[in-house]
Parts: sequence; structure tokens; C-alpha cells
Amino acid sequence: MTSELITGIAELTTNAGSGPGDVDGNRIADAALVIEDGRIAWLGAAVDAPDADARTDVGGRAVLPGWVDTHTHLVFAGDRSAEFEARIAGGRYAAGGIATTVAATRAASEEQLVAGARRLRAEALAQGTTFLEAKTGYALDVEGEARSARAAAEVADVVTFLGAHLVPAGVDRRDYLDLVTGPMLAAVAPFASYIDAFCEVGAFDVEESREVLLAGRAAGLGVRVHGNQLGESGGVRLAVELEAASVDHCNHLSDADVDLLAGSSTVATLLPACDLSTREPFPPARALIDAGASIALATNCNPGTSYTTSMAYCVATAVLQMRLTIAEAVWAATRGAAVAVGREHGADAVGSLRVGGLADLQVLDAPSISHLAYRPGVPLAVGVRQRGERVTAGTTQW
Amino acid sequence: MTSELITGIAELTTNAGSGPGDVDGNRIADAALVIEDGRIAWLGAAVDAPDADARTDVGGRAVLPGWVDTHTHLVFAGDRSAEFEARIAGGRYAAGGIATTVAATRAASEEQLVAGARRLRAEALAQGTTFLEAKTGYALDVEGEARSARAAAEVADVVTFLGAHLVPAGVDRRDYLDLVTGPMLAAVAPFASYIDAFCEVGAFDVEESREVLLAGRAAGLGVRVHGNQLGESGGVRLAVELEAASVDHCNHLSDADVDLLAGSSTVATLLPACDLSTREPFPPARALIDAGASIALATNCNPGTSYTTSMAYCVATAVLQMRLTIAEAVWAATRGAAVAVGREHGADAVGSLRVGGLADLQVLDAPSISHLAYRPGVPLAVGVRQRGERVTAGTTQW
Ligand SMILES: [Zn+2]
Ligand SMILES: [Zn+2]
Repeated sequence: MTSELITGIAELTTNAGSGPGDVDGNRIADAALVIEDGRIAWLGAAVDAPDADARTDVGGRAVLPGWVDTHTHLVFAGDRSAEFEARIAGGRYAAGGIATTVAATRAASEEQLVAGARRLRAEALAQGTTFLEAKTGYALDVEGEARSARAAAEVADVVTFLGAHLVPAGVDRRDYLDLVTGPMLAAVAPFASYIDAFCEVGAFDVEESREVLLAGRAAGLGVRVHGNQLGESGGVRLAVELEAASVDHCNHLSDADVDLLAGSSTVATLLPACDLSTREPFPPARALIDAGASIALATNCNPGTSYTTSMAYCVATAVLQMRLTIAEAVWAATRGAAVAVGREHGADAVGSLRVGGLADLQVLDAPSISHLAYRPGVPLAVGVRQRGERVTAGTTQW
Repeated sequence: MTSELITGIAELTTNAGSGPGDVDGNRIADAALVIEDGRIAWLGAAVDAPDADARTDVGGRAVLPGWVDTHTHLVFAGDRSAEFEARIAGGRYAAGGIATTVAATRAASEEQLVAGARRLRAEALAQGTTFLEAKTGYALDVEGEARSARAAAEVADVVTFLGAHLVPAGVDRRDYLDLVTGPMLAAVAPFASYIDAFCEVGAFDVEESREVLLAGRAAGLGVRVHGNQLGESGGVRLAVELEAASVDHCNHLSDADVDLLAGSSTVATLLPACDLSTREPFPPARALIDAGASIALATNCNPGTSYTTSMAYCVATAVLQMRLTIAEAVWAATRGAAVAVGREHGADAVGSLRVGGLADLQVLDAPSISHLAYRPGVPLAVGVRQRGERVTAGTTQW
């Protein structure tokens, strides 16, 4: 068991503090840290650094926790670039586009699904995402959802069952709800930690979503909700009622929704890349934060509405266009995201850097996290460590 | 002299057509090309490909011209991340921030200026930018501007003299104009191809800008203008009057400005990353294109208002938020940009791929250029060739 001392850290963002505004608790200037056995054995001011077996000098760069991406739909087959091109040429997103991916996903083998998800997982990891959630929801039949859940469990750190993504064509709504809450749930639950429902016009209403989510909760799953993306769907109210871990999208919120979230433990997970791709108005992120709600940022990586793996792009967009401070955006993409997947505390906590905790971190080609918004689009993650191990991008240079 | 056949090109964007809408002239599906001595010896359908000494199969990826970035301020010293953090926390951009960079640039050695610019140039190249303009304008005295011009000439493909960036503190306006149009111009002109003026409230008015630009033209330089960024500055009118190669920013345009540009040979160069960072409204890109004006996209890479080298970020933003089609945005960042620096035609033309032309190109980790907007933030340029030579990113993985 060798130890590695990392020095030359101009700014160490630990996000181990009490909130995004806790500068002293979250940030150490001129810092160092020691990695041992995949965990952080020591961190602090460089002048106090202990000895170690090996030493890496990152040359005045910033170090921060790896990104925690809590909302992806990585398990799919097919491509929707034609739909994307049509939409940006003037259309508006409607939930029905999902059906295209459902047909392709059903036709794919489990090996193909794993391979596709693995490629995207590697792409995300090379960009600093060391923890990633993935949902089912593109098969919508028992066998296919179970296959998707197995594929997700092979590739992602946490799996969410999203049988309630859409009622598939040709299936009776009532029959489908019985399937989702019955045999499909039973087949998927062994691979999943959460259940989710797309609570939106064109997908599932509040009553239907509640039924699905309660069935999942009874089966031992945590609750997540897709809510208030295309209108005031009631998804946020439902999420708070069910003490969901997270309600995701949140583009259309009433003042009452903001207050409900602020008074709850439910995290509002915001998906700025999706908002740009679908041209929905951004969620009222400032109002949420100012009211005291917890927020997370995630990619929503999926082939229809947000085909990006770049958490850095989400952070830059949140700062430049949603008016988060840099500290707030980075917190939302690390520690805030950890809250949204129940991984804030414990031995395998993610999204923060602490002694004894996992050495999941990234090195930026910049002296400060401010460069994530100051230098948008530049691939700044020039070092990624997962459990202390150096991640190599490994992309062929053509 | 070895030749290299590149096969497996799912989509070859040549941008050799008559305009962004000329699909047949700009795009070849299932293509191949041959590189010989830094130039393209052949291109066409893969089935017709000739033999070559070596063969590279890019595995179903898209190939397009390297980005042509026609607006950067790479030659500077110092950092303005604190100003950036203050601005995104609520301030508005004012031209005066430039003074900070002027002080640091004057204090730097020519070696330091070259090293800083070279680092950014390499960063841009690794992201697909094979041609890059750089401006002076952060020294604002004769010796310093000459030093900046020499540094720019060492690092960039074309140099623009921007003595008229700001009247430096403590200098009389009239005296400064005499300096810019006299000894400073004489000292810089040997290294520069263009003269530029920041025609904006707080910088130079239309009369002053005209005087500077005419002096530059008399010294044999082409004309560029910074115009209409913060208001209807008259910069666009002046640019068209002087038959400038380009007028850059163009955020605030009257209908008359749009018509003037449409009836001129002056390219409107749009800088979306700068607009996001300064929170100016985006330029009316659709109106410009629909009226028949030529546009280009550029980064405006500079430490104050747009510290990015990512042309891909500008392209994605132009599509997602300024309503360009993908073909229009890619054209504006390649062929349109070439027009804006007078390099559309001739043996050393850039921004398009043609037999006999330079082999400046990029390979995307995607089957189509649509992924540049479909997958924003993902570093898709997995192969960059400059004069046919493979560019290696060469970034240390920490
Ligand atoms: Zn989703
Ligand atoms: Zn400029």
C-alpha cells in the first residue's frame, strides 16, 4: 500500500463545509493531500504536508471533487440527431420523441446496451465525472427494463427504475401502470436503488406518478421525480409530499413550489444543458437558492433532449446564464448532487474531499474553480482520479 | 513525400460550396481524402479513393475544416478572474477593465508574452483551431505595441494592430491619436496585416476610429472594427463605409445596420462566448443571415470578457441560442471566418477543404457535425491535422 502526496495545489476545493457559502470550510489555498489505498489519508495546507512514498506536483493547479452526475439516461440504443436538428430549426420538445429510442432500445442486445453506456461513462469520467447515476426507461416492457437495469448496474454507480417514462404505444394506460407497479418493478428492483416517474403532460399525471412511486417505495426503493419541465405539472408538490430525494428539471415553478422545496429535504436537480437543447426557460435557480432550497446540477445525458456528458458545461451555463456563483454551481455539481443520491455521508460519501473519504477528484488546468465559468468550453480537467487511480483519457488521436 | 489516405469518413464537410445552404457543394457522405505534403491531393466518395502510401481509417467519424478563429487578443499578461467573478455576481462590462491588462502587459517581457500566447495557441489547436488571428492592444505605447505585434506574429497566423483599444490613463486623447496614427503605426505595421479600432462609448468615437483606420489603410493594412457591442456605436456604419474586412461584436444593430451589412462585403463577426460572459444580448444573427449578410464566429479570446479558446463552444452556442443551423454555424466558424481575414481564396486559403488546398482539418468523435450542438461541451475534436500533421494534445494527465 503506497501513499502519494499531491502538492502544488493552488486551490483545494473540498466542499466539506456546511454549505456553498462556507468558504473556510470548503476551500484551502496552497494545499496538499495524500492518497492511500484509494482514499484521502491527509489534506491541508502544503506547509504542513507529511511525507509519502510518492509525490506529484500539479504545478499551481486547482483540485476539486469529481463531478457527481445524478441524472442520466445512458442505457439506450439508436440516435436522435435528426429529431435534434428538426427541433433546433424551430420545433418544441414533446415527450413523444422518447418512443424512437424505445424502439431502438428494445431491438438492441444487452451487450450493445452495456457497450453504449460504457462508452459514455468513459467519456464522462475523462471529463471529471467520478460518480454517475443511470436510469432505465427506454424499454418499457418487463424483459427490456430488467435488461436495461442490469446494463445500468454494470456501468453506473446507482440505478434508477424509470418504467414510468411513457406509456408505450399500443398499451392501455391502466394495464401499463399495473405492469410497472407489478412484474416490472419486481424484475428491476434487485438492480435499482431508486424509482422515478416522468410527471408531465404527455407522460404521467400526479395520481399515476404517485401510484408508481409508492409502489417503488414499498419495494424498498428511494424516490425521484421528473417534474415541472414543460409546465407546472404538480411533480414538485408530489416529490415533496413523498419526501423524494430529488425532483429534476423544475423549469416551471410557482412561488408555492419554491417555498415547498425550501421547506423540504428534496433536492431540486437542475439540468441546464437540457434546457438549452429544448429551449425551455431555465429554472429559477436563484430564487430556489435564495429561498433556502437545496439544488444539484446534472447533465440529463440522453439521446433526445440533452446528449452531453459534460458536467463542466452545465456548471459554466449555470454560472453564466442561471446566475449561480461559481462556488454555488460547483457545490451543486458535487456535494449538492451527493445529497440528491443519498451519498453525502458515510464511508463511501461522494462530492466532497475529507480525510478517510474516497479519493475521487479532478485537477483543473487553472489556478481556481472560477475558470470553469471564466473559460467556458475549454476542457480543463487535465487530471482525474477515481479511487485515487489516474484516469487516462485513452482517446485515439486521429 | 509520402501520401496518406484517410478513409472511414462518415461525413466530410468541405465547405467548398457557394454558401452555407449549398449542401451538395459542402458535404460528401462516406468520403475519403488523400493528404500529401501538407495539402489535400484528392477528396471524394470513399468508393473512388485512390491508393496511397499510408492509410488511416477514422471509423465512421465526421471530418471538417479546422476552425478559423479571426478574433483573439492572445498577447497579454496578468489575470482578470477577480473582475470576472465580480461581473458575473451582478456587474456589467465596461471598457475600462482593459486598463488592468495594460498594466500587466507593459510590465511583462516579450518572452513572457510569447510564452503566454503560445500556451493559448496550443490549447486552441488541440481543440481544432488551425488558423488564428491575434491583436495587439494591451500595451498602448510604441515600444509595447511593437513588442506585442512581434509576439503575435510569432504565434498567430495573422496580426491586427489595435493601438486604438483605449486611451491609456494619463495620456491626452489627441496626443494618443497622433501616437497611434504616427510612430506606433510605423513601429507595428511591419508585423501586422490589419488595423482595428474599438469604436464604442468609453473607447473611441466614430470620427476618432475613422482617423485611425484610414491611417492604417494608408500604411497598407486591411481594416477591422470592434463595433456595436455595448450600444449602437456607429461602428457598423463606419466599417461598411471603409469596406472593412470585418466588424466584430454587432450586438446592438438597427435595421439600417443590418441592411448596410447585407449590402456590403464586410463580414459581421459574432462572438457568442463574449456575449455570455458580459451578458450583452446576442447579436441578431438570424436577421443578418436572412438579410443576406455574411457572418463569422470567433472566440474573442481575451482575459477580460471572453477567456475561452473553444470555437466548438461558440458554434454550439450559436446553434442553441442564436438560432443558426448547424451548417450555418460551422460555415461561419470556417469558410465565413476565412472571408473575414481575406483567406477564402488562393493557394493558402483556409476554412474549406479542396484539392490542392491546405490539409487543415479536424476529426470529430461523432458521425456528423450536428453533434457539435447535439453534444455541447463534449470535447469532440479527437483528431486535428495542421498542414496534414497530426497535432498531439500533449497535456500531462495529473
Ligand atoms: Zn431525465
Ligand atoms: Zn476584441
